Amino acid sequence: MNTFGNIYRITTFGESHGVAVGGVIDGIPAGISVDEEFLQREMARRRPGQSSITTSRNEADHVEILSGVFEGKTTGTPIGFEVRNNNQHSNDYENMRDLFRPSHADYTYTEKYGIRDHRGGGRSSARETLSRVVGGAFAKMALRQLGISITAYTSQVGDIRLEGSYSDYDLGNIENNAVRCPDDETAERMEALIKEVKMAGDTIGGVITCVIKGVQVGIGEPVFGKLHAALGAAMLSINACKGFEYGMGFEGVSRRGSEMNDYFYVKDGMVKTVSNNSGGIQGGISNGEDIYFRCAFKPVATLLQDIKTIDKDLAPTVLKTRGRHDPCVLPRAVPIVEAMAAMTILDYILMRKGNKL
Amino acid sequence: MNTFGNIYRITTFGESHGVAVGGVIDGIPAGISVDEEFLQREMARRRPGQSSITTSRNEADHVEILSGVFEGKTTGTPIGFEVRNNNQHSNDYENMRDLFRPSHADYTYTEKYGIRDHRGGGRSSARETLSRVVGGAFAKMALRQLGISITAYTSQVGDIRLEGSYSDYDLGNIENNAVRCPDDETAERMEALIKEVKMAGDTIGGVITCVIKGVQVGIGEPVFGKLHAALGAAMLSINACKGFEYGMGFEGVSRRGSEMNDYFYVKDGMVKTVSNNSGGIQGGISNGEDIYFRCAFKPVATLLQDIKTIDKDLAPTVLKTRGRHDPCVLPRAVPIVEAMAAMTILDYILMRKGNKL
Amino acid sequence: MNTFGNIYRITTFGESHGVAVGGVIDGIPAGISVDEEFLQREMARRRPGQSSITTSRNEADHVEILSGVFEGKTTGTPIGFEVRNNNQHSNDYENMRDLFRPSHADYTYTEKYGIRDHRGGGRSSARETLSRVVGGAFAKMALRQLGISITAYTSQVGDIRLEGSYSDYDLGNIENNAVRCPDDETAERMEALIKEVKMAGDTIGGVITCVIKGVQVGIGEPVFGKLHAALGAAMLSINACKGFEYGMGFEGVSRRGSEMNDYFYVKDGMVKTVSNNSGGIQGGISNGEDIYFRCAFKPVATLLQDIKTIDKDLAPTVLKTRGRHDPCVLPRAVPIVEAMAAMTILDYILMRKGNKL
Amino acid sequence: MNTFGNIYRITTFGESHGVAVGGVIDGIPAGISVDEEFLQREMARRRPGQSSITTSRNEADHVEILSGVFEGKTTGTPIGFEVRNNNQHSNDYENMRDLFRPSHADYTYTEKYGIRDHRGGGRSSARETLSRVVGGAFAKMALRQLGISITAYTSQVGDIRLEGSYSDYDLGNIENNAVRCPDDETAERMEALIKEVKMAGDTIGGVITCVIKGVQVGIGEPVFGKLHAALGAAMLSINACKGFEYGMGFEGVSRRGSEMNDYFYVKDGMVKTVSNNSGGIQGGISNGEDIYFRCAFKPVATLLQDIKTIDKDLAPTVLKTRGRHDPCVLPRAVPIVEAMAAMTILDYILMRKGNKL
Repeated sequence: MNTFGNIYRITTFGESHGVAVGGVIDGIPAGISVDEEFLQREMARRRPGQSSITTSRNEADHVEILSGVFEGKTTGTPIGFEVRNNNQHSNDYENMRDLFRPSHADYTYTEKYGIRDHRGGGRSSARETLSRVVGGAFAKMALRQLGISITAYTSQVGDIRLEGSYSDYDLGNIENNAVRCPDDETAERMEALIKEVKMAGDTIGGVITCVIKGVQVGIGEPVFGKLHAALGAAMLSINACKGFEYGMGFEGVSRRGSEMNDYFYVKDGMVKTVSNNSGGIQGGISNGEDIYFRCAFKPVATLLQDIKTIDKDLAPTVLKTRGRHDPCVLPRAVPIVEAMAAMTILDYILMRKGNKL
Repeated sequence: MNTFGNIYRITTFGESHGVAVGGVIDGIPAGISVDEEFLQREMARRRPGQSSITTSRNEADHVEILSGVFEGKTTGTPIGFEVRNNNQHSNDYENMRDLFRPSHADYTYTEKYGIRDHRGGGRSSARETLSRVVGGAFAKMALRQLGISITAYTSQVGDIRLEGSYSDYDLGNIENNAVRCPDDETAERMEALIKEVKMAGDTIGGVITCVIKGVQVGIGEPVFGKLHAALGAAMLSINACKGFEYGMGFEGVSRRGSEMNDYFYVKDGMVKTVSNNSGGIQGGISNGEDIYFRCAFKPVATLLQDIKTIDKDLAPTVLKTRGRHDPCVLPRAVPIVEAMAAMTILDYILMRKGNKL
Repeated sequence: MNTFGNIYRITTFGESHGVAVGGVIDGIPAGISVDEEFLQREMARRRPGQSSITTSRNEADHVEILSGVFEGKTTGTPIGFEVRNNNQHSNDYENMRDLFRPSHADYTYTEKYGIRDHRGGGRSSARETLSRVVGGAFAKMALRQLGISITAYTSQVGDIRLEGSYSDYDLGNIENNAVRCPDDETAERMEALIKEVKMAGDTIGGVITCVIKGVQVGIGEPVFGKLHAALGAAMLSINACKGFEYGMGFEGVSRRGSEMNDYFYVKDGMVKTVSNNSGGIQGGISNGEDIYFRCAFKPVATLLQDIKTIDKDLAPTVLKTRGRHDPCVLPRAVPIVEAMAAMTILDYILMRKGNKL
Repeated sequence: MNTFGNIYRITTFGESHGVAVGGVIDGIPAGISVDEEFLQREMARRRPGQSSITTSRNEADHVEILSGVFEGKTTGTPIGFEVRNNNQHSNDYENMRDLFRPSHADYTYTEKYGIRDHRGGGRSSARETLSRVVGGAFAKMALRQLGISITAYTSQVGDIRLEGSYSDYDLGNIENNAVRCPDDETAERMEALIKEVKMAGDTIGGVITCVIKGVQVGIGEPVFGKLHAALGAAMLSINACKGFEYGMGFEGVSRRGSEMNDYFYVKDGMVKTVSNNSGGIQGGISNGEDIYFRCAFKPVATLLQDIKTIDKDLAPTVLKTRGRHDPCVLPRAVPIVEAMAAMTILDYILMRKGNKL
């Protein structure tokens, strides 16, 4: 299942150290102006080596568009794209050929397929998410025409968390620090923690919050295609994502119904709600308020420490990780969360509107 | 999107106060022994009126099987089924015809469809989940043959929570109290809280934990069809579910990678892990350990209080709720969580094995 | 795969001699006026016992709508429906329990499923098509609002065929004879042939032509979802259908390109074609001309003769068919062809327009 | 809808004169030995410029595999592939920018999308079928392991047709002549006709017959997923295909049931049928006999003549076709028919067996 979406659909391919990663975007409406500069900028946000708190691998990750765009506009036909894998230190991974790294997919892939490309995690590598950022960038170009914006940010790293709601922060500030947190002071503390963890050869997890503004009322499909169920599946498909909640989420379970209900009022002939504990979705359908949700990311499983594990013959062995790795996945996961959200929202809008905007 | 699943697929129909609710189960393997007594027992677990802490509506909810079973066994053809709606106090809902209840789907359905069956929430009513329990019961009959068990329980109501892991409790005790919590002492406190809330005309939320034992290694589909992403979408499609996490979930984000990794060992020639922080899934594929996850349920939006809201002409109005409602959805949601989990697991096993066991 | 369609989707269930046949229609736009009289009239066209050239089984086939319709209009939620099986002479089929009828699905179902409901063909019986007529009737109600009409007729029985194109006949005349052929004189000869064949305990095949008028230009999905490919799959899913061609079809292969091309002209600012050899579809997308196609139906496999065959132990046996059967499936297949066409066209229009009209 | 298949799925991209054409194959079982030489040989069979009766465009069409293959075997992850478009005489098509060619998709694409890549037909060009041949080649590599062979051939060009059944000819002879007809004498006459038509600047159609041997009994999905319905949809999705029939097809409609039934016998403990008028499928499920079908291809719409047509402003104009075109699509369509058949059969086998062989 390397395809995501119903009408706006992306199919991805590629291993971490194969020839290329890429994909096909199907179902994009015709006539969208293609902003290649924006596309490469989105890629740069996910790119390794972008700061001192991400992996030091330096991959240019240039996207080549192979089809579906003609004279600067989408034609409604599928957009094929690829990124060649240039910086392949495949030999770095030769010691991984025959062993199973703990809390990675090595063992489960081997059991499922009987064979695996061990280099850098192969298909299970987060390098696959590069294709999602491409799909998300095109979705954002379409959503921009509808006045819809999607913004994610790092709201927690380890125990350091933003206590406020998304509306308490200047979301325009997110790209101003390496950790992608809108509050500079908190960002500094998060960075310090990530560096400390990195020095120890260890890793740390965190939470990403995402806000979607401008979705009209009426988008979503009961009963199994609820908009938040689609967003949840989208986020949980991202490597290392272990949890999803929207609106008040887990925190709301200890509230009374009388505290949680979002009461209606009318403003300028528009239906609004006083609070937005529901997170912009009722019965699986958008209600016109901001949609917001949070995603939990576990600490990266690859440590720069000697790790005792087993090999494919089930004998004990020790893994000495070389290579270059992220001590914390959060900063680079922010654009991936946005990309998956953008594709989901566009897909659901197209289910309502048909294959055009 | 009233269909769920890929190979094992359920399509449901029916409004709360229409003629009937029901559905079609497609893709069930042939030759499964049909245990109708078990099916009705599962229905009874979801049934209103089962205890003093659920709604006092008393619905027999007898399932009639219309096809797909021959001489006591499934034939591999679709199983049509229905439950007639008998206990319809439709007039109780006449006052709901023209207004929008806060934190319900009245407004979003009206905006999406331009029309809605207002009686008891119509299609957005949790009565729809009855069909899921039927689909789950058949899935459990198939999974039983593979030695797979699925058990959910109430692990939190309001602020009262079980602090231990699922392995700390006797899961055989769950059906012994009305709240479906394995720890009797905690169950008593939960019941007391629900009754207190009910007396106040209010409602309360909670958390359901679910454990799946016996799934072989290798079930799950990278990269968009990860097993936990499918489970997440399944749970988030249940009414009132606002969050999903598996393994260590949100709690794990503040741990170090070195604490979180599940190290391998070999026991009797089988690969096992020392801890199970991953929740039984690596890279979207089961690793043979127990699969476990938690779902957040918000407090029910229907209060037995006068509620200020607006009507379809956007004029202010007051809703006086009569009818009979649940002060806490958790006890009755337990079998629904199990049903969605059973359907998801069977579906994924069939994707691996083809349309037979 | 008991579901058909992408946006407008029908899922059917039911065996010939089970409790009921029925289904669920998902994705119908909200607000369609439901014409129950029309629905029952469509059912009557497919009904056994309607004339001396169809089976003498007399089944009332009353459709009960279980959901999705409120105060005379569709609500956009799924329409559950069922037809109870009353006239069950199940004992007529006891002799079929253990043998395989030639050119029926008895053997292949047994090999695929290991079990089968032998009574009247079980799931492989044409009784399943009843549900398609329901789905088609609702689709026609929606298409009517768009000015689209769908008309099928018997154009060939055995060697007796209409030589002209659909435009040479008065399609309003189709329901005026038992065989559903627009030319009365040909209809009489067809009827005579069917009666002659019936007297001999034999059966005969034929061709149904279908014309769709009023589809706007631009409906269809390249490259695998071509409109004619979807129509072809729809028709080939009908029992006994062995071939599908659209436009000039097989006859066109011996023409020159210069004869076959449909040249454009402009009339009242509208693009038209001088001829319509293409059958109203170019590159898989409707061009605004009439869409027409032809379906080949083989002679019914059930003969009122003693037939040598084998039983499930592979021993030779003789089948003595009792029961009541159609000597020619064509007259009753006409409304089924229309129903499948209606569902396909509506589905494709909704893919373009989204889930509303 | 640029994706085909359920478990074995291909998604294609690319325009005739864009950067590249290619696609992604998803769902291929792991561990299949990849025969790249065979792949390129299959490509050569579809390649333009292969003989004097095909277009004189000379395209090397080298397939580059980008992922999913590791150390000579499939890994079960998606296979990305591409063919760069080198021989682009895009200027040859400048005169097509603003006009609609008759019986091409220019007008319908423009109406559907509002924009089109006019060069060489853009997405609607048969160059897209190149990707299908890649998908078919991989499917054949998998089917080979199961002993399944798929062979198509040209059985009719214009009025020249093979009168016998596929079993009357030496199918090993097909690649020995340019027209891909197993009977040399008929092949010569077909070639002569194609050359004559080409000299006149005209084109001609024909029929391709396809035979699938070695499919076990029990493959196919009632009721909407009948194996022949899937094959029909697959063939009708090929450019210029106007009709599909299997078994006796249209010819069988004039037979009596008593002539058409395929009677059973037992040979070496295996169930066989005396005749195979059914074409190897009963009730949508394979019965173990050879599966065979026929596809009608219309004459190519592009003529080397001056053609009167209209432009996008609906004004009359004359199209003078330069470029290099096929006078008859049949010889190059043979491998495409085989490819679509191979993908369909493998897909259906995987639905039965799960995602492994």
